[in-house]
This record gives sequence, structure tokens and C-alpha cells, in this order.
Amino acid sequence: MPDVAKDAPLAERLIAGDKRALARAITLIESDDPAGWDLVREVYPRTGKARIIGFTGPPGVGKSTLIGALTGEMRKADREVAVLSIDPSSPFTRGALLGDRIRLSEHFLDPGVFIRSMASRGALGGLSEAALQVALVMDAAGKDDVLIETVGVGQAEIDIVDHADTIILALMPGSGDSIQALKAGVMEIPDIIVVNKADHPMTDTMVREVRSVLALSHEAGDWKVPIVRTEAMNGVGVDKLAVKIDEHRAFIEEKGTLAERRARNLRSEVIGIAASRMRRQLEAWAAEDAPTAELLERVVRRELDPATAASELLERHTDA
Amino acid sequence: MPDVAKDAPLAERLIAGDKRALARAITLIESDDPAGWDLVREVYPRTGKARIIGFTGPPGVGKSTLIGALTGEMRKADREVAVLSIDPSSPFTRGALLGDRIRLSEHFLDPGVFIRSMASRGALGGLSEAALQVALVMDAAGKDDVLIETVGVGQAEIDIVDHADTIILALMPGSGDSIQALKAGVMEIPDIIVVNKADHPMTDTMVREVRSVLALSHEAGDWKVPIVRTEAMNGVGVDKLAVKIDEHRAFIEEKGTLAERRARNLRSEVIGIAASRMRRQLEAWAAEDAPTAELLERVVRRELDPATAASELLERHTDA
Repeated sequence: MPDVAKDAPLAERLIAGDKRALARAITLIESDDPAGWDLVREVYPRTGKARIIGFTGPPGVGKSTLIGALTGEMRKADREVAVLSIDPSSPFTRGALLGDRIRLSEHFLDPGVFIRSMASRGALGGLSEAALQVALVMDAAGKDDVLIETVGVGQAEIDIVDHADTIILALMPGSGDSIQALKAGVMEIPDIIVVNKADHPMTDTMVREVRSVLALSHEAGDWKVPIVRTEAMNGVGVDKLAVKIDEHRAFIEEKGTLAERRARNLRSEVIGIAASRMRRQLEAWAAEDAPTAELLERVVRRELDPATAASELLERHTDA
Repeated sequence: MPDVAKDAPLAERLIAGDKRALARAITLIESDDPAGWDLVREVYPRTGKARIIGFTGPPGVGKSTLIGALTGEMRKADREVAVLSIDPSSPFTRGALLGDRIRLSEHFLDPGVFIRSMASRGALGGLSEAALQVALVMDAAGKDDVLIETVGVGQAEIDIVDHADTIILALMPGSGDSIQALKAGVMEIPDIIVVNKADHPMTDTMVREVRSVLALSHEAGDWKVPIVRTEAMNGVGVDKLAVKIDEHRAFIEEKGTLAERRARNLRSEVIGIAASRMRRQLEAWAAEDAPTAELLERVVRRELDPATAASELLERHTDA
């Protein structure tokens, strides 16, 4: 498969599509190794080809099963697929999801599928940044589709999915919360809505409700958000979902929305990385810089309030 | 009740314990009004007296009911109580919690109880920072106990609770996830564990499991984490919880842990505020500063990778 030597530089092996090189690259990024950042710098001009597809939705709707089934569809079309699962950030929602992994495990032996999960909170924070860097190396490795799934429900996980080209919200019949969230504008309108577990008797009601919310937000010339019914467990409807993803892609390419969206996402990625590095720098100053330590002591002695101390800290070290 | 004139400055009225002044102060902080920051600066030397008690635990265990019942206990001891509820950050977990509010509503008419909830994601981000500022004004207003409850399960909410003097984890029988999280070290060991809904047949099993996890982490001389069984809905066991809170307080005061913990928390609060302001500043530069905009354009053109652009941005504007 890879037509480069085993001892070729990592970037070269990555671009040739070597699975081990990709796994290694991700480990470097996850562990915040400078070699990981160097690698991304090197391969970055080769990125931008993959379709980045994000999946969001409440726990228990069967996102992993859906992604597993969709991966099967994409493989039929001979597309190379990478799946990135972001594990829950909450200590309270772990564990319940192992059953869901079964569907994905079908693909473990397929060399055209690469599956990786990331823990939600690395030693250095900044999960969003790391996840987006991982998506870049998956793209550089020649994957046609990068599927990003967040298992957690925190804002950080949702932010990651927001960076996708196509955002899919998975719902299931009988759970009203997500529709309320859409209605209230708490959640952005996704590009495609999937109603999974569509053999449930409440499915029609659910679809009607979702449709009425979508009607409110739709404007002429916009992409018309489709509602796809699936039973991911049995593969039902997943082919239709694959078609809708293709159609959305064609629409945003034609309208120029893809370029706009990517530009906006890349800008916010730069700011995210800078902000997370800045936080680390602030922590380093607090630990090592004597005037900063003294400033913090004054806060502890209740002489200076935290917000004023923060302003002084920024004035001292930045041109903010 | 307040013995200051109605037209006295806000800080004065706040310190006198005027409920309206406190409500106004919180609104200023929430809306990121500079007057809010000024106010905190002014009253900050008066803070540090209240007990800050944080509640965490998975959704559905009855945290609000527990807090409502505990508030009743504290009022019996003639303590003034403020409750700060942090609403979920996730669009997927909203709404389910209204029923839980009922227990708190008992106290709505009691002038010795002040209840406020904050939305998880303000226009300017930085919920943690705002929540901690709110706790400071509640403290300055002379509340004896400030109870902070997070409804959400995201890391941000858990971080807020970590700033409390006493951290209470509420569990319920039959939910194994939280015990797994404790065991795996995903979640810090709290100061007190409550097993609510203790009329459930699985309660004994749950208590045994929790005790075995605690035994592993316990070291001699440490605070011995008590497990309190409650049926918050009927008030059962809540008096014992109040006693355990008093005991924990006495222990950390005697050992000096309280001062240490507060110093650590205040330091991280300063860094949190600085980091969140820095992020806003970065966003402003991206929008207004021509060289920054050009840097971002190079990222969009795939000439410069996001991480390198972030480094250049920081080099240009900070001494990092």
C-alpha cells in the first residue's frame, strides 16, 4: 500500500497513506509533542481535500452505530474513511457507550478505514485544538471522508463538530429536548437531521415537529435541511443519508459556502490554539515569575480582586 | 432590613445585605458590565467569610431537591443562604430539570434565602469566571452559606464546583457510572458523598461500592470522606448532611487546608479571567488588526498552518 520506504520521514509516510504513520502522528499530537506540530506544519499544504463530516446529538441515539453503517456505505463507493471519536468530557457519562462501539468494530480489519478515539481532556487541555489537528493529518493521509463524532454533550465537543463541512444532528423519536433546543436557538441548525431508530411509533410525530422548526428558520436560496429516517442497527436509510451528504457537499461547493465556512473555521482554530497556549503561558508565569506570584499573593490576601489582578497580568505581558 | 439609604451606592447597599442590590450586582456581572467588575473590586476585601459549598453529580440524582432541603436545615440554624445554579451548557440536557426546581421554590419568599441561576454560556463566554464573581458578591452581601450547583455535566461546570471550600458529590443507587469515574480517577474525590434516593433497594450495594473506592484513596491524617444517605424529597438524612458539612469545615480550618485551597482557587481564578480576556483580545485583533488578518488569510490559503500562525500571533502581541 504505501510506496515509500519504511524508514522514510514520517510526513512522507503519512502522505503516502501509511496507517502506522497516521497512528503515530496522532499520538504525537495528542501528547502535545513538538514533533506533532512540526508534522502538521509540513503536511498542511496537502490538506483541504477530505470531506469533514461532524456528528452531534444526545447520548443514546446511536451515533456510533450510524457512523459504522455510514462507513460501510462510503466503502462501497470505494472511499477511504477516517473516524475520530471524541470521548465524553464528563465523568458522569462515561461507560454507557461501549455497546455502541460494536458497529464500528466491523471495520477494524478494513485497511481503508482508520478509527481513533481521543480522550476529552488531555494533560494540557485544548482538546478542540488537538482534535482539529488530528483531522488535518487524517486529511493529509489521503482519507476521502473524515467523520468526527463527539460522544460528550459539553460545549467543547459541540464546538469541534462546528468545524466540520457538513454537520449532522442525530435524534431519536420520543426525545423532545433536542427539538426544544433547536426551537430556542440554543443549538445551531445542522445541515442534515437524522431521525434514527425510526421503527419507533413516535417517529412520524418527531419528523413533523422537526420539520416545523426547520420551516421557521428556512430562507429562500438556503440549503433545505433534509430529515433522513434511519434504523442504523439494520442499515435501513443509511444509503439515503450518504446521498444527502453528497448533495450537501455539491450545494456548498457550488454556492461558495464551503470556502467561506472553512475560512471562518480556520480563523477560529488559530485563535483557539493561541488562547490555549496563552493560558498555559499564564500558568507558567504564575509558577515562575516573581512579580506575577506577588500579584497572586495580593489576591490571596484579599487586597486585590481577581479581575483587577488579571488585567494587571495582561498589561504587564501583552499589548492588550 | 438594610439600614442604608435606598440611594446609597450599590456597594454599600450590597454589604448591608440589600437583596435588590445583590440581584443588581449579579446582573451587572452576568452582562459583563464594567460596573460589575468595579463593584467586585470594591467589596472584595469584605469577602472570604461565607462557606462556599459546591454540589456535583449526574443529572437526575436530585441535586436541586437536596439543596432545597439543605437550605431548610441551614435556615433552622438561622444562617443566611445564597444558592447559585449553573444551567446546563449542553443543548441536549435542557428542560428535564424544571421539576427539580420545585423544592427550591419553597424558599422563594424567605428573605434569608437568595436564589439565582446563571445560563451556561453568555455572549462573551467565561461562565466560570462570572460564576465565581457572583459567589464573591454573595459572600460580600453577608450570606453565611453560598451553595453552588451545576446542572450540566460539562467540564466547565465541574471546574466551577472545584472552587468550593466543600465539594459534595450526589449519587443515586443503581447508577454505576459515577463510581467508575471515581475509581478511574477521572473525577476528584469529593469531600462528602451523598447517596440520595436512599429508599431504593440498591442503596446498600451502592454504599458498599463507594466505600471500597474511598478506602483505596484514603491516607492517614486525611479527611475521611463520609457517605451520607438521604431521601431529599422527604427531608430524610439532610440534617446529617448539614452536620457533615460543619465537621468538614472544622477539619479544613484546623488543618489549614481551607486557606491552602482558597489560595489555589483564587490563583486559578485570576488565570481563568486573564485567559478568557486574552481570547477576546485575540478575536478583536483578528477582526481589526491588518497584519493579524493577513496572517489568518495565509492560513486560509493553506500556506501557513494554524498552530504556527497562533505562535506568530502570540509572538507579535505578547512576551510569551
